[in-house]
Amino acid sequence: MPSTPLLCPRCGTGAKDFSGCGACRAEGIGANPVPPLADLSGLSLRSYRGGPWGWPSALPVTGPPVTLGEGGTPNVRIHFRDPADGELWVKYEGANPTGSHKDRAMAVGVAAAVAAGADTVVAASSGNAGAAAAAYAGRAGLRCVVFTTGGVPEPLRAQIDALGAFRVVREDSSARNAAMGEAVERFGWYPLTSFASPSPGGNAYANEGYKSVAYEIARDFGDRVATVVVPTSRADLLSGIERGFRELRTAGLLARVPRLVAAEPEAAAPFTAALARSAPAEQERTSVVYRPSPAFSLGEERPTWQGLDALRRSDGSAVAVPTEVFMAEHRALGAQGLFLEPSSAVGVAAARRLVREHGGLVIAVGTATGLKATAGIRRPSPTTVPELSQLTL
Amino acid sequence: MPSTPLLCPRCGTGAKDFSGCGACRAEGIGANPVPPLADLSGLSLRSYRGGPWGWPSALPVTGPPVTLGEGGTPNVRIHFRDPADGELWVKYEGANPTGSHKDRAMAVGVAAAVAAGADTVVAASSGNAGAAAAAYAGRAGLRCVVFTTGGVPEPLRAQIDALGAFRVVREDSSARNAAMGEAVERFGWYPLTSFASPSPGGNAYANEGYKSVAYEIARDFGDRVATVVVPTSRADLLSGIERGFRELRTAGLLARVPRLVAAEPEAAAPFTAALARSAPAEQERTSVVYRPSPAFSLGEERPTWQGLDALRRSDGSAVAVPTEVFMAEHRALGAQGLFLEPSSAVGVAAARRLVREHGGLVIAVGTATGLKATAGIRRPSPTTVPELSQLTL
Repeated sequence: MPSTPLLCPRCGTGAKDFSGCGACRAEGIGANPVPPLADLSGLSLRSYRGGPWGWPSALPVTGPPVTLGEGGTPNVRIHFRDPADGELWVKYEGANPTGSHKDRAMAVGVAAAVAAGADTVVAASSGNAGAAAAAYAGRAGLRCVVFTTGGVPEPLRAQIDALGAFRVVREDSSARNAAMGEAVERFGWYPLTSFASPSPGGNAYANEGYKSVAYEIARDFGDRVATVVVPTSRADLLSGIERGFRELRTAGLLARVPRLVAAEPEAAAPFTAALARSAPAEQERTSVVYRPSPAFSLGEERPTWQGLDALRRSDGSAVAVPTEVFMAEHRALGAQGLFLEPSSAVGVAAARRLVREHGGLVIAVGTATGLKATAGIRRPSPTTVPELSQLTL
Repeated sequence: MPSTPLLCPRCGTGAKDFSGCGACRAEGIGANPVPPLADLSGLSLRSYRGGPWGWPSALPVTGPPVTLGEGGTPNVRIHFRDPADGELWVKYEGANPTGSHKDRAMAVGVAAAVAAGADTVVAASSGNAGAAAAAYAGRAGLRCVVFTTGGVPEPLRAQIDALGAFRVVREDSSARNAAMGEAVERFGWYPLTSFASPSPGGNAYANEGYKSVAYEIARDFGDRVATVVVPTSRADLLSGIERGFRELRTAGLLARVPRLVAAEPEAAAPFTAALARSAPAEQERTSVVYRPSPAFSLGEERPTWQGLDALRRSDGSAVAVPTEVFMAEHRALGAQGLFLEPSSAVGVAAARRLVREHGGLVIAVGTATGLKATAGIRRPSPTTVPELSQLTL
């Protein structure tokens, strides 16, 4: 089905579909075959207008773009209470059309589905990916079926429904993935996310949309960037960003690839557990027990191979953030004007610590708007406004 | 308190505060004193980077910008089932930092508050303005108090709370405005929205941020634009856009001001009622009975004077859209990938009819993301996906 060939970055085997590398899966390892890196030589960062379609030649898709104006997201500098030696910026992906970074991938994935002649696309998702798939499928005039569990937050449930996708609800993520797998096999529906186990990561064409995060960071900050912190689950975003930086360096548009850091909720932190081991063979076979956390968009049992590869290539690391730390960060961000989903605060909390300890310019990818998850938000204390007790009206 | 002088555009009286023109209020008319139009000569639309701070010299504020990356929102073309002679585009303001067009105003209004030495800003709001005020106040390190009623939708309630503003809840909008008025008078708090009756419209410095919508439209479409449709309540956005276009035309950056159309929910449509009268003295004294509708961000009893003036100057009109028509538009937009709040669909529904009847290039301002109002959204019918009955898993 793939038009541009996909090769496993771990073992070199070619892919016949989007279910990940079968040879690696037989070894118990989730690895995602990828298209060749793009050649960016001759392009200028200065005239790059942002988003995946800003440089269509960097994408493995021919045919017309599918777009809702994704990408080109703003950078917001974070204030520190005490002066810090470095700079912390949030790249606010909540400004995307459906309110998350997933739009960058689904714009490209749906364009690939159109090019492949699909009439129906499918996604297995706890939320943001499903909403993005629904939006771009609608944009392209395709049907969209989203396989979910009952755990989808209400705003995302409403968003997926409003965007005209049909939700199939299963009792847990394993049953959800199995149902999606059956639908892909029996009906030939086009998969925009992964459904195999261990998860290899999502549709490799779609993931190329994430390279645009790296292009935008390079355009906006150049070689000043020391570190990019990415909230990480299956590492589609992380590995896409690393590929983008690698393309820029190869083309001479960037002197070096910034250090990449995978930020995980402590409740489910396979990359952190993997990097605590020394042998690659042990790292890639790491498994942890998944526990839920308020960072509902994050949490896997195993690292994907390409995620580990991205950290290794960029001399990066992984950080597990306790729930109370990222929820305190969530409140602190709100108080300075940034309402993000808790999963995004996992990344900012990790980035804040990096800036404190090492200085430098650190960018945390703020993956989604806080409007995706509004349950449980507390009212500030009235003691902050003592004057109000004097009001007569 | 105002630093740049504000003069009533109706009667020429100077303003001493942000409560609207007192002379016009004594006649029962809500009119908002404004700063002088900016001189845009020498500026280039090509290098304008969008947002209110893209051209800081066009703003009546000195001192540092307060920004979260607002503006520069995408244009999304709407598909028609049957070919139409014209083009319909939605300018998607949901891509702003807090998910609505209000960010453009509050960025400027809070900067004006900082310049005025304020430590606390206040807004009376049913939602989007309160969330934007909270965000930009937080950004600038000011306290924010939002006066609301119990009718605020849950996502907006959560957003305001998460952004660290304190919500004061009163039983209706009249009590809400009275409490805000008392707070402004007794505590010297800086008002970002109006609280007088009849409403004169919001803080005139803040409103200058809306001019950037016109600048962006002119940059992106040039003189091809026939009509801009604006969901309208107090007409802050409408009159701000008209002022922006007028500045552009005066500076020779645009050949003519597009026709402006105020789109209102039929349940509360004072501009439509006013324009049905012929004498200006009758138009500006029009009053209708307010009835609530799913377009919760819209609905006033009286037109503001500057809103009428903007329609008059641009040879524009007002359209009242029945609830079933804009809710059908809301679903149609969702099905093509755009999840907007119902108030935005009021504008798109009106614009769709204009394109059908008159052709030309019409832009509807899509004022806010659908994530602001998620209650009552229905699941698509399963009959759209008959294959699902065959799934065994």
